[in-house]
Amino acid sequence: MELGIVGLGRMGGNMLKKLVETGHTVVGFDLNAQNIKDCVTVGGKGADSIEDLIDKLKRPRNIWVMLPHGTPTTETIETIADLAAKDDLIIDGGNSHYLDTIKLGDKCLASGVRFADCGVSGGIWGLEVGYNLMVGGTEEDFKRMEPIYKSLAPANGYKYLGKHGAGHFVKMIHNALEYVMLQGIGEAFECLERSEFKLDLKDIASLWNHGSVVRCWLLDLLVDSFTKDKDVLKKTAPFIDDSGTGRWTTEFAVQNSIPVPAMTTSLYERFASRIDERISAKIIAVLRNEFGGHPLKKE
Amino acid sequence: MELGIVGLGRMGGNMLKKLVETGHTVVGFDLNAQNIKDCVTVGGKGADSIEDLIDKLKRPRNIWVMLPHGTPTTETIETIADLAAKDDLIIDGGNSHYLDTIKLGDKCLASGVRFADCGVSGGIWGLEVGYNLMVGGTEEDFKRMEPIYKSLAPANGYKYLGKHGAGHFVKMIHNALEYVMLQGIGEAFECLERSEFKLDLKDIASLWNHGSVVRCWLLDLLVDSFTKDKDVLKKTAPFIDDSGTGRWTTEFAVQNSIPVPAMTTSLYERFASRIDERISAKIIAVLRNEFGGHPLKKE
Repeated sequence: MELGIVGLGRMGGNMLKKLVETGHTVVGFDLNAQNIKDCVTVGGKGADSIEDLIDKLKRPRNIWVMLPHGTPTTETIETIADLAAKDDLIIDGGNSHYLDTIKLGDKCLASGVRFADCGVSGGIWGLEVGYNLMVGGTEEDFKRMEPIYKSLAPANGYKYLGKHGAGHFVKMIHNALEYVMLQGIGEAFECLERSEFKLDLKDIASLWNHGSVVRCWLLDLLVDSFTKDKDVLKKTAPFIDDSGTGRWTTEFAVQNSIPVPAMTTSLYERFASRIDERISAKIIAVLRNEFGGHPLKKE
Repeated sequence: MELGIVGLGRMGGNMLKKLVETGHTVVGFDLNAQNIKDCVTVGGKGADSIEDLIDKLKRPRNIWVMLPHGTPTTETIETIADLAAKDDLIIDGGNSHYLDTIKLGDKCLASGVRFADCGVSGGIWGLEVGYNLMVGGTEEDFKRMEPIYKSLAPANGYKYLGKHGAGHFVKMIHNALEYVMLQGIGEAFECLERSEFKLDLKDIASLWNHGSVVRCWLLDLLVDSFTKDKDVLKKTAPFIDDSGTGRWTTEFAVQNSIPVPAMTTSLYERFASRIDERISAKIIAVLRNEFGGHPLKKE
């Protein structure tokens, strides 16, 4: 079928490629001209602007937006909604906050444009193994887009989850689980490395993925990492970034009085990883010195 | 090859079955006579006592001990070591504390008996898909036992990890990672269930295991659970037991000054799950009432 994609970065570009390879007609637009050239190279049609992309699609149009969450996504979807015609469908495939998705979807629907949200997991591996798709919106629009979802996902790797917002909500919780699994793996391998045994971390990651209870795809990635460069840990700073979904999950949990201690701990460990000068640690050291005379370590 | 197994419970019994099926000669002993009968039914040889088991094995003997950790394992291995001859090999396949394993192994070696430890993961699924084996001891004894390990494990599912204690240490850390993964999955599905969306937990567990970043065997088990009984959560009390390895990991981390916040949180959540009357919660409620007049909820 025919699809427009706005946003041809790491995710959108690979998804366009996968869709073209499976026989779909895809028109792509991106603010970066190189990404449009790459889209044409892999068999997509390039558009010069959102207006041009809309002109190049037959009605009713399907337009997938794959942009960073927040302003880029919101402004782009509002622009498309203004230009779109009745029964055109906009799909937000980015990592938007599900509450933004609900508001933006309501706005689109009020203006006569259809709207769906699709949480996408699989990262840069999606091109090879397929993307996991968590879909919100109406069931009718899910069926309309199903040929696209089928081409993007592995078998059984896409599902309709409910009204718009549900897709991004489930993706947000998925990401928070990912934080916890990563934190658990990090702590486990730190224990292995700091033990009295001389353990080969790659061997153990690989061993655990053959029949143990903790086998998971993330351990496969760890094996890959050590295989590509056995000194990867020596070259990597202990600094972990975040893209927002972990914070949103803790905010959701706080607002709804749901205890999520492991998710929150995993999030805080990321914050801690970025701060060289822990003021809390300095305060505690100073107070221990005051009340107990415990010596201070000087800077 | 020939092997004796002491302890024919859920794990030992299934392992004996798998070994007999793959052509090994296995002599089994258990304090429970029914387990010995079952061992004979599946093609093993039964022994009436540890002495009888030792008599029935040719020298040099290989004796696998698969018993609950602590006294049952220690006393049994000491008994076997007293009766065993030079070059006989005792393998502790249970979930022993690695420090106990080091002590017990040292004792065996000092008395001229060989000793290895093997952490076994895979639970009741091991019979079908193979057990994951984490092996400590000497490399020579690892090679001697390799035909047994090969038969028990899936491809690439067993590995030599270092001196005795290493196997149980790595198994202990494996279990602590399992605690964190379980806690993350628990929190994620609690968020899904308590959201404004009407989400089908089984659908999402299944969806996530087809191409998402969090795909793992534990999510497969959750799908199985919901498939066998869609009301399983209604029938299950929120009470989580533990078998010790999570506590030992936190103790190891404390003794070695390694921060493992997610592991410790996951352990504490298990303790919390068993206490209906949280005294800490009562104390906090009483104090809030004292200083702020915040109303108390009465029993």
